[in-house]
Amino acid sequence: MTRHFNFCAGPAALPEPVLARARDELLDYRGHGLSVMEMSHRSPEFVAIAERAERDLRELLAVPDDYRVLFTQGGASLQFAAVPYNLLGRGGRANFLHTGIWGKKAMAEARHLFGEAPVAASSEAGGFAAVPRPADIALTEDAAYLHYTANETIGGLEFDYIPEAVRPDGTEVPLVCDLSSSILSEPLDVSRFGVIYAGAQKNIGPAGLTVVIVREDLLDRACAEMPSLLGYRALAEGASMVNTPATYGWYLAGLVFEWLKEDIGGLAAMEAINRRKADKLYAAIDASELYSNPIAPANRSRMNVPFVLADDRLDATFLAEAEAAGLLNLKGHRSVGGMRASLYNAVPEAAVDALVDFMGDFERRKG
Amino acid sequence: MTRHFNFCAGPAALPEPVLARARDELLDYRGHGLSVMEMSHRSPEFVAIAERAERDLRELLAVPDDYRVLFTQGGASLQFAAVPYNLLGRGGRANFLHTGIWGKKAMAEARHLFGEAPVAASSEAGGFAAVPRPADIALTEDAAYLHYTANETIGGLEFDYIPEAVRPDGTEVPLVCDLSSSILSEPLDVSRFGVIYAGAQKNIGPAGLTVVIVREDLLDRACAEMPSLLGYRALAEGASMVNTPATYGWYLAGLVFEWLKEDIGGLAAMEAINRRKADKLYAAIDASELYSNPIAPANRSRMNVPFVLADDRLDATFLAEAEAAGLLNLKGHRSVGGMRASLYNAVPEAAVDALVDFMGDFERRKG
Repeated sequence: MTRHFNFCAGPAALPEPVLARARDELLDYRGHGLSVMEMSHRSPEFVAIAERAERDLRELLAVPDDYRVLFTQGGASLQFAAVPYNLLGRGGRANFLHTGIWGKKAMAEARHLFGEAPVAASSEAGGFAAVPRPADIALTEDAAYLHYTANETIGGLEFDYIPEAVRPDGTEVPLVCDLSSSILSEPLDVSRFGVIYAGAQKNIGPAGLTVVIVREDLLDRACAEMPSLLGYRALAEGASMVNTPATYGWYLAGLVFEWLKEDIGGLAAMEAINRRKADKLYAAIDASELYSNPIAPANRSRMNVPFVLADDRLDATFLAEAEAAGLLNLKGHRSVGGMRASLYNAVPEAAVDALVDFMGDFERRKG
Repeated sequence: MTRHFNFCAGPAALPEPVLARARDELLDYRGHGLSVMEMSHRSPEFVAIAERAERDLRELLAVPDDYRVLFTQGGASLQFAAVPYNLLGRGGRANFLHTGIWGKKAMAEARHLFGEAPVAASSEAGGFAAVPRPADIALTEDAAYLHYTANETIGGLEFDYIPEAVRPDGTEVPLVCDLSSSILSEPLDVSRFGVIYAGAQKNIGPAGLTVVIVREDLLDRACAEMPSLLGYRALAEGASMVNTPATYGWYLAGLVFEWLKEDIGGLAAMEAINRRKADKLYAAIDASELYSNPIAPANRSRMNVPFVLADDRLDATFLAEAEAAGLLNLKGHRSVGGMRASLYNAVPEAAVDALVDFMGDFERRKG
């Protein structure tokens, strides 16, 4: 068995101890005589797995008691529809902070379903190189909620603060956050949010699972007409088992939560590791003549580090040599090109050290 | 490692060779240095896995070229919404054959979203003990399609024929089938259908993956306003990668398709095994004084065999002793009680032999 360093933006690297445990339990979960995949979602064994995962996630994020945690399907992209369906039932319009491709997709889906979705602030004029400053955020009088994307996976742009969601008249509205690519990378004040959602395939587990954290008082704002399975209230009341959930992904997420608690020591410890990893890579980029990253230092993503080579004719060689050196999936998103190194929780510091060494060596030889 | 016999209705038993292969490849997929779970869905390695799975499924079911195969999420239950959204864009009403709990749920969702969904025939008056006869099926003049559930997992009621979907004026409309619990259990004439859908967690793979097979000419009937991710056209044009799919489930489904082709020898061979398994169990039930099944012989499900004990005070003992004997998950659905043995593809004939022996022994001792 060989394990390479995997910088994929998602589906992304998983912690090796989690994969090893999943492998050892794959045919026989702890003496029960069957795989977790083969268990009824309503069996005592699986319900224990599911409840433990939720408990551990609540503990890691210190989720307040008046928030419900949902384990659902369809990825963050299905939440682009589910959020407005669940929050616009009493009228008003969704407001958006526009900081990149994922936020734009969320906005497009709200417009597709509800006609309008005003932009409360945008980074577009500055080429998405910095997030809007708090003073630039202006909600509409009829804002039903404010949506933002905490970390733009493709642009590598991350909020360094939690925005306020306040209408011009001073009324607070729910803050909704797509946290897909940075959830669990650091401690979070969940009480600041109305809804948090995240596709699992970066920092939680395998693709196909979606985690939603929603404040209980928001369960009563849903539209009457929407696919029943997207309704937060039904999911909350049915313990996320309105229909058969993605049981194996849920189990793996639970193993990841355990790893975060027990092997890493919680989110403050994880944050320190993530900060070190990102600092090393950005320092190497900034010290080089060959590599560059265009994002304002305060808003550089700790999870996704895009960079370009001064001479893009070197791109293919860079990628081929990196792969030969066991550094996988460094190609930038097809919409932007260049390189991108994703440094999610499961990417070890040794991977970043190896990448920095490789980049230095490559620059000396080709730069 | 111990493997028991697992009669779960779903998530259900998976073929042991499939699980063993998944285990062996879990940390390092065939020398690539990472898990399938950790691969980008757009990587050449994963695209090869995805395409091979589709090819094998097409070969197994002899899917005609003018049908698209989609690998999506949300289970059959999300298709209860997706089907009317995709087929009612030009007006008309969904018509339903009502043969049990799952068909009723599909009908309820169509009514929730579109107001009306006439029943073209129902088994309700007969206690769902037989499917409607062809002559009893009467579509409305404005039927846009006819939906039925080929096998009712809870009631244990299975169609022994493929219905015609014809309006009173003789116009044929698309036939839509929820095939979740019997897909791949026998050869199928796909050309008879407009849309087939199936949650994976019975005969395909793990929960969280949904397979949809849709005739190409039906891709143009979608409603304008629906969650984008539910649209068949976008999924078809985006090779089911409009957003990140459930990659690991897709890979496991591919392993199951390979097992069906190579280990079993295709669907005709699978059908013969499934027929033997079901015949043995129904014969044991019919020969006994203690056990009974209420379904008309021609409509008895080959996949899900519900049965009750003449004295339901014996139920708990039966289940406890069965479990102690390594016969798992025989409890009937909470809505109907009694017992249910699900005999999906991955349940070996030896499991049925062991169950029949146990039932005979139990009856001799307690009956």
